[in-house]
Amino acid sequence: MFLNMAEPVQIAPATGKLGVLTPGLGAVASTFIAGVLRARQDGTPPLGSVSQMAHIRLGRREDGRNPLIRDFVPLASLDDLVFGGWDPISPNALEAARTCGVLDERDLVSISSQLEGVVAMDAVFDQRWVSRLDGQRVKNLTNKWDQAMALMEDIERFRVENDCDRLVIVWCGSTEAFQEASAVHETVEAFEQGLKDNDDNISPSQIYVYAALQSGVPFANGAPNLSTDLPCMVQLAQQRGVPIVGKDFKTGQTLMKTLIAPGLKARMLGLRGWYSTNILGNRDGEVLDAPENFKTKEESKLGVLHTILQPEVYPTLYGNIDHVVRINYYPPRGDNKEGWDAIDIFGWMGYPMQIKIDFLCRDSILAAPIVLDLALFMDLAARAGQSGVQEWLSFYLKAPQAAGEHPAEQDLFIQQTKMKNTLRQWMGEEPVTHSEAG
Amino acid sequence: MFLNMAEPVQIAPATGKLGVLTPGLGAVASTFIAGVLRARQDGTPPLGSVSQMAHIRLGRREDGRNPLIRDFVPLASLDDLVFGGWDPISPNALEAARTCGVLDERDLVSISSQLEGVVAMDAVFDQRWVSRLDGQRVKNLTNKWDQAMALMEDIERFRVENDCDRLVIVWCGSTEAFQEASAVHETVEAFEQGLKDNDDNISPSQIYVYAALQSGVPFANGAPNLSTDLPCMVQLAQQRGVPIVGKDFKTGQTLMKTLIAPGLKARMLGLRGWYSTNILGNRDGEVLDAPENFKTKEESKLGVLHTILQPEVYPTLYGNIDHVVRINYYPPRGDNKEGWDAIDIFGWMGYPMQIKIDFLCRDSILAAPIVLDLALFMDLAARAGQSGVQEWLSFYLKAPQAAGEHPAEQDLFIQQTKMKNTLRQWMGEEPVTHSEAG
Amino acid sequence: MFLNMAEPVQIAPATGKLGVLTPGLGAVASTFIAGVLRARQDGTPPLGSVSQMAHIRLGRREDGRNPLIRDFVPLASLDDLVFGGWDPISPNALEAARTCGVLDERDLVSISSQLEGVVAMDAVFDQRWVSRLDGQRVKNLTNKWDQAMALMEDIERFRVENDCDRLVIVWCGSTEAFQEASAVHETVEAFEQGLKDNDDNISPSQIYVYAALQSGVPFANGAPNLSTDLPCMVQLAQQRGVPIVGKDFKTGQTLMKTLIAPGLKARMLGLRGWYSTNILGNRDGEVLDAPENFKTKEESKLGVLHTILQPEVYPTLYGNIDHVVRINYYPPRGDNKEGWDAIDIFGWMGYPMQIKIDFLCRDSILAAPIVLDLALFMDLAARAGQSGVQEWLSFYLKAPQAAGEHPAEQDLFIQQTKMKNTLRQWMGEEPVTHSEAG
Amino acid sequence: MFLNMAEPVQIAPATGKLGVLTPGLGAVASTFIAGVLRARQDGTPPLGSVSQMAHIRLGRREDGRNPLIRDFVPLASLDDLVFGGWDPISPNALEAARTCGVLDERDLVSISSQLEGVVAMDAVFDQRWVSRLDGQRVKNLTNKWDQAMALMEDIERFRVENDCDRLVIVWCGSTEAFQEASAVHETVEAFEQGLKDNDDNISPSQIYVYAALQSGVPFANGAPNLSTDLPCMVQLAQQRGVPIVGKDFKTGQTLMKTLIAPGLKARMLGLRGWYSTNILGNRDGEVLDAPENFKTKEESKLGVLHTILQPEVYPTLYGNIDHVVRINYYPPRGDNKEGWDAIDIFGWMGYPMQIKIDFLCRDSILAAPIVLDLALFMDLAARAGQSGVQEWLSFYLKAPQAAGEHPAEQDLFIQQTKMKNTLRQWMGEEPVTHSEAG
Repeated sequence: MFLNMAEPVQIAPATGKLGVLTPGLGAVASTFIAGVLRARQDGTPPLGSVSQMAHIRLGRREDGRNPLIRDFVPLASLDDLVFGGWDPISPNALEAARTCGVLDERDLVSISSQLEGVVAMDAVFDQRWVSRLDGQRVKNLTNKWDQAMALMEDIERFRVENDCDRLVIVWCGSTEAFQEASAVHETVEAFEQGLKDNDDNISPSQIYVYAALQSGVPFANGAPNLSTDLPCMVQLAQQRGVPIVGKDFKTGQTLMKTLIAPGLKARMLGLRGWYSTNILGNRDGEVLDAPENFKTKEESKLGVLHTILQPEVYPTLYGNIDHVVRINYYPPRGDNKEGWDAIDIFGWMGYPMQIKIDFLCRDSILAAPIVLDLALFMDLAARAGQSGVQEWLSFYLKAPQAAGEHPAEQDLFIQQTKMKNTLRQWMGEEPVTHSEAG
Repeated sequence: MFLNMAEPVQIAPATGKLGVLTPGLGAVASTFIAGVLRARQDGTPPLGSVSQMAHIRLGRREDGRNPLIRDFVPLASLDDLVFGGWDPISPNALEAARTCGVLDERDLVSISSQLEGVVAMDAVFDQRWVSRLDGQRVKNLTNKWDQAMALMEDIERFRVENDCDRLVIVWCGSTEAFQEASAVHETVEAFEQGLKDNDDNISPSQIYVYAALQSGVPFANGAPNLSTDLPCMVQLAQQRGVPIVGKDFKTGQTLMKTLIAPGLKARMLGLRGWYSTNILGNRDGEVLDAPENFKTKEESKLGVLHTILQPEVYPTLYGNIDHVVRINYYPPRGDNKEGWDAIDIFGWMGYPMQIKIDFLCRDSILAAPIVLDLALFMDLAARAGQSGVQEWLSFYLKAPQAAGEHPAEQDLFIQQTKMKNTLRQWMGEEPVTHSEAG
Repeated sequence: MFLNMAEPVQIAPATGKLGVLTPGLGAVASTFIAGVLRARQDGTPPLGSVSQMAHIRLGRREDGRNPLIRDFVPLASLDDLVFGGWDPISPNALEAARTCGVLDERDLVSISSQLEGVVAMDAVFDQRWVSRLDGQRVKNLTNKWDQAMALMEDIERFRVENDCDRLVIVWCGSTEAFQEASAVHETVEAFEQGLKDNDDNISPSQIYVYAALQSGVPFANGAPNLSTDLPCMVQLAQQRGVPIVGKDFKTGQTLMKTLIAPGLKARMLGLRGWYSTNILGNRDGEVLDAPENFKTKEESKLGVLHTILQPEVYPTLYGNIDHVVRINYYPPRGDNKEGWDAIDIFGWMGYPMQIKIDFLCRDSILAAPIVLDLALFMDLAARAGQSGVQEWLSFYLKAPQAAGEHPAEQDLFIQQTKMKNTLRQWMGEEPVTHSEAG
Repeated sequence: MFLNMAEPVQIAPATGKLGVLTPGLGAVASTFIAGVLRARQDGTPPLGSVSQMAHIRLGRREDGRNPLIRDFVPLASLDDLVFGGWDPISPNALEAARTCGVLDERDLVSISSQLEGVVAMDAVFDQRWVSRLDGQRVKNLTNKWDQAMALMEDIERFRVENDCDRLVIVWCGSTEAFQEASAVHETVEAFEQGLKDNDDNISPSQIYVYAALQSGVPFANGAPNLSTDLPCMVQLAQQRGVPIVGKDFKTGQTLMKTLIAPGLKARMLGLRGWYSTNILGNRDGEVLDAPENFKTKEESKLGVLHTILQPEVYPTLYGNIDHVVRINYYPPRGDNKEGWDAIDIFGWMGYPMQIKIDFLCRDSILAAPIVLDLALFMDLAARAGQSGVQEWLSFYLKAPQAAGEHPAEQDLFIQQTKMKNTLRQWMGEEPVTHSEAG
């Protein structure tokens, strides 16, 4: 019987400070930091953060046990967070916030000096991977092994200077050009040799992951880059006993897609095509205007339907889907990404119907609480003795990395159930099944 | 411990014919019948029918047990269905199908004589409850008790003439004018007296429910009318040991709403307002153009957000929602209902975002498979010895009737889980929890 | 020959100050005033104002004569405008601007004392005509004749105190409850008797028109109220030699409608239906939530298609149109009105097509430049010796009032041509025909 | 004075048969032919055809002279049309109609043998210019001069076999790969030498134009290909006294753009950006999925805003526009092209607003009446002794070819006025000015 009495795991308490480091200190990271500062300064609610706002039901519905998640599991407190990061362009979080234009000036004024104090360390950056950006604040080192060592020194220096008990790293940088894994990514050994040989197949984001894991710091990957999902990184995470998770924050259009597609499937409505276009005018849009970077993102965005809809099980319904995803750089939109979807479905006797969705969203506003939650949950996982891929955090990710052989779940609702049931289990509570009996 | 080893229930086999009777033999019922006839004649897949198309996972994912629901639970076969109904306007299912214009002529041609053979019995109808319709094929009886008796005779005659083993009734008629429950609806006794006294508070659809239950026939209510949810009907269903379920088929816009709202809540995104407008040009649209009938539908449509979003638990996120629902009669649309939603949400630091959804749907195409599933599952419930409110079928309904004191679940995904776990439990299988352990 | 050499009219120069008085000092009027103040203080361009921004071609294209309209005709300068008004709620233009929330605080800060100086005079107001508003700053007079006399005193006092050379009044108040013209509106005499008798059929906005015309002040009606279009007012305008124009500012959805409909007609595409819904959350939305006020607006909005499409000339194309207009009060939208249109057209061989338009507009932002233009052009008309209905200003109005028996033009492009050709003619220039010869 | 009394032109009567030849006998051409056949067989109105359906006002409005255009100017009768064409894929118009799926079978059945009788001649085709098509029905000639001669023989043979009095050719074929004009296109002489030399810069569509003009047949170009707009073709048209017109039928999205943009400009509303995406699933969509072909179309589609909005005159309003046009091949849509536009405007004090337009159109349904009108009007122009570029037909074209140095008008309403005034002038009627005097 697989639903045996849950056995709680041992979780070390969240004492002292938790440093949150973000490679990429641009729109997403500065919005994340600003929101946390405002939350602890004047109680602005951290909207969109499941770890801070959501309740979790325990036991039967009639028991009435429904605490906040943050009161249920021992998360680090917002008051104990310290922020840092690397960026090739922004000098500090205040300038980043002002340049990207996500937040109104009136939301920055009371925290401006704190934001200014979050100074970006020089980045490991290579324009070959992000052709549309021209970074100036870059480490003056050409050998990749040396770059890795420098990052490890940055990490250690940050830890000491800020008196951190623990660290966690969340990639908030740009999408890198498309690549497939190569031999250099097969093992830790091969990767380290590649670093020393300055192997062309090693991208900057991979060097960050390597440095983090070697430093024993959990790493979450918010972009579609090939990084935590490389065999060498999975191996290193296990060797070093460090949690990793990836990839690509699930924010606007894909978030909607992973709501709608499970709904169509729940009702056995067929899908003939799904056309998604995005327009955005921020740095992210500019980066993705380069075909090689778009391809990385496209792969990440195209995967979701297949896993959810199971065309192999439902060939009549989902065996012939035209799925097209486009991203266009359109400066008038700024950070306010707009996603438009045209969805072609069919029902009873094959009759076609259409759904159009126009999502006037805000990229960084949707991503910021994900950074917070991933930072806090990855730290929790580390204290709970977990290592390797944290598949239970798939809820937050467009292309979730699987821990085993089965592809990770893409359905937002199953992901949510998995996440909550994982927390319940760690704390010795029963999973919730929504059966009549339950 | 509440997740104890499931104990299967005894289910009588589905032998002989199952008669499906629909009060209302218009667009929805004729589309439903046509689709079943085509499915059994030439194998047209019954798209949108969960009972026919969906698989159900049993045990752990790695067990690979994933049968079709119809192979897992002993449902009546499509080949054993016999159709009948009552209608104040349509003489038979063929004329209904042609008049309402849902299906192309080419989809009717091969089954036209069978459709013509589904002759409508004279209806119990009163224009006071549906001011926009003018029914001619109406029973020539003015006393409501006499009407109930006549319906019971219709039911019995249909059973005998068609050699049915069992019957089930699914209300596919129009929405009646708004009313609140009154004293006459309190007990079976009061209701029966009211029938005899021709009480003004008793609507035609209530007389059908009474007749069905007294005849021992399960009743599903596809409209928002006050009927199965009256105290007297719940009491009668229990006394007679008959399953009931209601109300209001969850088809287009509300279906989307119960996908999107749980997604917003899963991500702790706030909701400031939700404006929904519908345009449709069929008989349903004409009926709902009357304010008193629209009010009935409006109540049904407005309820969903509250139950899903729990403003009492999440006042910051969901404590101040402007929820507006409008329906407009717009003849150019015909049966192709269009629902347009403007959704105002807010996230991190209170920043607002907007979602617009335009659903070019087809009312009857979405409703038809629900009629099939409710007919088959209600028949299953009856054979499984269930009586009273079948809350596990909430998945199909806009304003699901609760079996106990807690309001019924509105979240489509929890509804789906409940439905599947109920079937698993009846068959002696474990519920699925999507926990890492599961 | 009708295109005879144009004969210029005599236009008195725009010397001294022009007072612009607005009955209604709410969102529209305060936005109008703020924009003019900013334009003359720091050169913010008066976007959307044709009188200030648009050029006008003179002669043949190859002549290269293309001056700004304001350099072509002798309009009052923005520097010479003085502002005033009446309002039952707002004490002054600053409070109005802040309450209605159209403009950001940063756009008000540099002009706040000037706005504060635009103090509202007590209004003639009667809640019977605008049930959703509760005005407190109201003249303490119950007899309508006395109210008219008080308004005339207000006008004269304003003129003297502000040393105005000329005045013009633009109605920026709410939509009043629906009414048909009655006997009291037939002649000036009957109307004056009605004022004295406190006739129930006389609405507040009519008293303003009467007071304006008796004071020799041109009056433009920006709401759909029955006022300048009453026979008594047309008569009075002619008697007193004063220009009038109405009615209902053409801003968001109707503006689009009068673009699209002429385009469909130009291409001989048929129209089967046009469904328009509006959601808005400002005071205007609140007022129109009352059915009797909505009816006034609805009539104004429904008229446009008929005049443009000429169903009597094109019965095949436009003889069977379902035109539905709805307005819903939806507070989350604030002043940012959203109009959604579903347009059902048909083309070659009758094949149907659909157009959906979602206009995320801003009511007052679109109305403000119309107030400016009407004020300046009405003043110009007065100096040009024009009196009675100024049909050439139909360009700005949803339900333009005709000067003669033919209904006024609704097609935005013909309206524009008429307006420009009128100005050309007044100044002794040839009309532009866009013929190959021209 | 430029509006002198119009002098009518001499127009030869439309006696005998008019052959309409279309290079490209696919979706557009077969839909056009089917509609004309149905119109003359059973009176199906030729909706969307201005020449057949529209009235034209003559004199002052009060004169009441408002004939149909076809009763005003001596057009060829639909009964006198004969159809032919070339196609590399379709064998005849019936197969083309069935393959492309624009028209329902029920609309073809009564005219199927006539459609089958419109047999495609072998095409001049080269996959180098249309990489996504694989034509089999192609002339077996490799030299371009020989191809031109063969086309001239086809034309002459068609004329004789069908006893045609006159011919006209309308290009209905695919968009060719992008090219710039080169030396070979400078003069007729250079072009003829290029044909003989098999110059790589000469595309198939250019050979058709050459053959038409040398045969004295008017040519209209419905695609964005460089053809009638080459200097050599303009020269040849003048030498031979033949009318030409181009280019690119103005159907869905660009049609809307040339309605909306003039409206924004009329109201002096600023434009910050216009994002247009198209999804279509027909052969056209497949062809345009190749970047080199899309580039040709993109150039054609991007031009319209500049000419209409005059950024040089209105830099504040239109000096900084991001205009993005995308086309995506999306098979579920079939011939039912969908165009989605996101338009970012700004008004009073710079406040931004948004317009979204979703046009669910039908490509061939919108193009077919344009083919008819261009055929009839080009024949009229020829009989009226006109030669060279017929700029007055810009109304129908996305990238209208100018007759002189000024770019051609793009505003749909000015185009319409120009077209009608040209017809008025030819027939000796005054232009209409919409001035108050007129």
